[in-house]
Amino acid sequence: MPTYKVDERDVQFNLFEYLNIGALSEYERFKDYNEEVYKMVVTEALKFAKNELDPLYVSGDREQCQINDGVVSAPKGYLEAYKKMGENGFIGIDTPVTYGGQGLPVAMATAVGEFMIGANVAFSLYSGLTRGSSYLIENFGTEELAKRYCEKMYNGTWTGTMCLTEPQAGTAVGEVKTVAKLNDDGTYNVVGNKLFITGGDHNLTENIIHLVLARVEGDAPGTKGLSLFIIPKVWVNDDGSLGDSNDVNCVNIEHKMGIKASATCTLNFGENGKCRGYLLGEQTKGMRLMFKLMNEARLMTGMQGMAIAGSAYENSLTFAKERIQGGDTAIVEYPDVRRNLTLSRAFAEGMRALLYYTGKCIDLSEAHPDEEQREYYLNRVDLLTPICKAYCTDVGFKVTELAIQIHGGYGYCSEYPVEQHMRDVKIASLYEGTNGVQAMDLMGRKLALKNGQLFREYYEEVTKFATQHEGHATLSTEIASLKKAMDTVAQVAMKIAEWGMGGDKEKCLMSATPFLELCGHATLGYLLLDQAVLAAKTIADGKDEAFYRNKVRTAKFFAYHIMPGVQMRAKEILSEDMSAMEMEY
Amino acid sequence: MPTYKVDERDVQFNLFEYLNIGALSEYERFKDYNEEVYKMVVTEALKFAKNELDPLYVSGDREQCQINDGVVSAPKGYLEAYKKMGENGFIGIDTPVTYGGQGLPVAMATAVGEFMIGANVAFSLYSGLTRGSSYLIENFGTEELAKRYCEKMYNGTWTGTMCLTEPQAGTAVGEVKTVAKLNDDGTYNVVGNKLFITGGDHNLTENIIHLVLARVEGDAPGTKGLSLFIIPKVWVNDDGSLGDSNDVNCVNIEHKMGIKASATCTLNFGENGKCRGYLLGEQTKGMRLMFKLMNEARLMTGMQGMAIAGSAYENSLTFAKERIQGGDTAIVEYPDVRRNLTLSRAFAEGMRALLYYTGKCIDLSEAHPDEEQREYYLNRVDLLTPICKAYCTDVGFKVTELAIQIHGGYGYCSEYPVEQHMRDVKIASLYEGTNGVQAMDLMGRKLALKNGQLFREYYEEVTKFATQHEGHATLSTEIASLKKAMDTVAQVAMKIAEWGMGGDKEKCLMSATPFLELCGHATLGYLLLDQAVLAAKTIADGKDEAFYRNKVRTAKFFAYHIMPGVQMRAKEILSEDMSAMEMEY
Repeated sequence: MPTYKVDERDVQFNLFEYLNIGALSEYERFKDYNEEVYKMVVTEALKFAKNELDPLYVSGDREQCQINDGVVSAPKGYLEAYKKMGENGFIGIDTPVTYGGQGLPVAMATAVGEFMIGANVAFSLYSGLTRGSSYLIENFGTEELAKRYCEKMYNGTWTGTMCLTEPQAGTAVGEVKTVAKLNDDGTYNVVGNKLFITGGDHNLTENIIHLVLARVEGDAPGTKGLSLFIIPKVWVNDDGSLGDSNDVNCVNIEHKMGIKASATCTLNFGENGKCRGYLLGEQTKGMRLMFKLMNEARLMTGMQGMAIAGSAYENSLTFAKERIQGGDTAIVEYPDVRRNLTLSRAFAEGMRALLYYTGKCIDLSEAHPDEEQREYYLNRVDLLTPICKAYCTDVGFKVTELAIQIHGGYGYCSEYPVEQHMRDVKIASLYEGTNGVQAMDLMGRKLALKNGQLFREYYEEVTKFATQHEGHATLSTEIASLKKAMDTVAQVAMKIAEWGMGGDKEKCLMSATPFLELCGHATLGYLLLDQAVLAAKTIADGKDEAFYRNKVRTAKFFAYHIMPGVQMRAKEILSEDMSAMEMEY
Repeated sequence: MPTYKVDERDVQFNLFEYLNIGALSEYERFKDYNEEVYKMVVTEALKFAKNELDPLYVSGDREQCQINDGVVSAPKGYLEAYKKMGENGFIGIDTPVTYGGQGLPVAMATAVGEFMIGANVAFSLYSGLTRGSSYLIENFGTEELAKRYCEKMYNGTWTGTMCLTEPQAGTAVGEVKTVAKLNDDGTYNVVGNKLFITGGDHNLTENIIHLVLARVEGDAPGTKGLSLFIIPKVWVNDDGSLGDSNDVNCVNIEHKMGIKASATCTLNFGENGKCRGYLLGEQTKGMRLMFKLMNEARLMTGMQGMAIAGSAYENSLTFAKERIQGGDTAIVEYPDVRRNLTLSRAFAEGMRALLYYTGKCIDLSEAHPDEEQREYYLNRVDLLTPICKAYCTDVGFKVTELAIQIHGGYGYCSEYPVEQHMRDVKIASLYEGTNGVQAMDLMGRKLALKNGQLFREYYEEVTKFATQHEGHATLSTEIASLKKAMDTVAQVAMKIAEWGMGGDKEKCLMSATPFLELCGHATLGYLLLDQAVLAAKTIADGKDEAFYRNKVRTAKFFAYHIMPGVQMRAKEILSEDMSAMEMEY
């Protein structure tokens, strides 16, 4: 039974009306593309997600990954689907065409990603990490290495992973103990154990290319001594042919609450002293590279929150329209159900707006001819990345909770997909840096970066929007609330900066999570209202009227039911209460 | 590995310091008991929960209930543990001694329930529903029926169920289609299908006593035509011996997200025309009886939120103290982790305060010699029941979410119990009336009952407390916030009443869920501050100082980090925004 549902109309609205990505063709980088091409890709990607990935969603969860004698197998059908995915070019959507990427805008990759993840998140982790690691090799590896590895990764012949975590080094990545030693031939011998490695082993492809964080013998302790290595599961000869097994062994897979079709592995590198790899980029500069990969991975993780929530919401809506209770009334008519549905919808559309917008900012930060503009958009991406990751995964989880609630008792049963949605999405708040780590990144790093420029630019943009539309015919009250919310955000940010400068680190850290939440509320409020202003204008055309009217209603709903959370969290922070630090635990 | 953890000290504080239940012995009903007896029961119950139920918690989840050829089997060890539970008298803790109950206060049953549920919620459903159905037979059945059934239910020989839901009749219970027809011998022939029946079939006991909602042929449609029937799985002869199978067949068990060791059954009654039962209470008065059972079941469900959250919190605390990250610092020292821990703690202690207090109110509503006082406490129970059910299950779920977060990636893995806590507790927001139904009960029924008397009395009590302690040495600011929060609650309640009288039903219904949430916040704020005032007084004794200081800190934390939610939800309601109703779904 098909379970994946998505509001394709809203995807189109984001890409082609709100973000108008067709206009990106004015930049050199995207000159060969146009709206027509993009629309075709959207159609094909959605078809692929529905026809190839959705059918494996539930079965993959039930069957799970298995490990027998150190050999990991993915559920039935995954091998064939992965092959097709590579053949269809869906792995490197937004990477350069040089080694087989499609060279499309990141905004487009976000749409394609929404479909793939929404239809089957566990599956999409194999391709997502492959794209990420391949792109890193492409960017920082020698041409020779790039040629040898990237094409086969983009076309689905091999997959890739990122190996950071070790038993003692989770959030504290600087504690990595894996060591590397230079060999005479320029390769490195690597020894160490890695934990929680997504797609660390499986039978989808003949080879797996690991990017491994390790320390060259003698390098400094902590993160500043770490380097990054390319370590294939099976050695790749200089001519690209496969050599011997490279002494990378999977000793365990985790039994998890969800994403059960994704193999989460414990890997031993070099337990027989025969694991070799190549240094990627410069020695001791591993974290810098890893951060690039991690930032992309964080956006992909945010997309998991958004994509799963989108499908959970659409599934709830279908259920609510079909489920009759009390005579012949469908439950969609009941106000409390409508409130839950509209909460879900507002979050789902808000997250889509945020992630697609951030995708376009990445495109502009790379493709815009004006350097100042590129910096402006890069600043925006830097600022929004932790919000995309943490807010979208927390709120995405909340939407799955609401989806179960809307389904009533049925929501708890496996015959409906929403309980799996909840189990699957929960991981997203934990990996790629827990949401607490994201909050600290926003509060401790992004807020202070360039003397607060990132935040200032953002504040000015939102304020400009609010001023420009303060007399709006139908949305003036809601826009005034946004203005007030944004001022509150600024007030709190100033206060935190003041604590920071005063050395009151604990007060800053205590504020991190509520600060990220209030930034998230304000950001979604801004984007939804911005979209609503566009929608209100478009209603007059008379075409697709219900869609545009609903866009306006969704933004209004967000303003009254969710945005007051900004003031609440501000109140919490400004109370300066430190009872939690005083607790005798 | 033991997974159950509970703050026994806080249980003792609630029972013997805050509620001082030893003093209940001044009432006739509890004259044979005293604090010493109660303390012994607490010790024994906790021992039983830890030794007998906790070891089956994880294994029961993995093994699940199975159905083969219509025969349902519970996981290994459940049969033996259930037998012991009956022998130890833990099933009818608070029911009269007449047929084998222990006659203890409901407040005590709440503590015992916390342990049993916290250690193994799936298991405790078998005993919880048995107590409920047996107590109903004891209260409303003939002496003969009570004698025949209750003793064996309280001593663990038989279990009991409540059978309301049918495929078309979930929340809309009036749609029940099961029919009953009077036989010449005074029994009724019953035919119908019931869905989602907890403990509907299993191999724990030789018989299962179903309380079944059905309609006598010819009676009115809707809820007012429903009657309640005692239908044993195996017929019970007049002498108490077992007769033939009674044509009750289990045709399916649900595959669920959690509580997998609890059999959730689809039952066919009388598919061969041979299912007989006894009318319980009066014909067409079934809903009245069912409501009594449901109210108790709602409190038990609220206890699931509280008990599971209590263990999830304690597990997180243990983890946070043991988990080293970044040198030699345990993560419990990190402010963001402390915030999550203290949020969990504040909710967990607040829920305990609420449910134990409500338990004592039930005791006073039944045992107090003064009729006015009995009514006063009954009013309080009526008002708080939907809050206990919905708020504690939503917030209990939230605590399990925080627990997973505190565990990081480990929280997602089955080797730690918190992911099971989350899966198990989710059901509690759905059954016994979804939380949306509870919100409507509070807003639509309880608020208006006796012209608002329930609410008025409660408002006066909280306000009196706030006034009495407005000059408190260490808690005056927080108590002032509580006063303000309670005034906001009153203001919102008045507004809803105004809408109700004006016939604006949709606006009332749209406010139901946020109204319940704000009442919950205010209620926990009140009880935690009331406890903190007592704790602040006790600190001076110098004994157990850390415990009392922490009680004060927990209440402060709640006031600054959670209570602002009252104003936020009020703002939402008072916006009168009806976008959700306008949405074209």
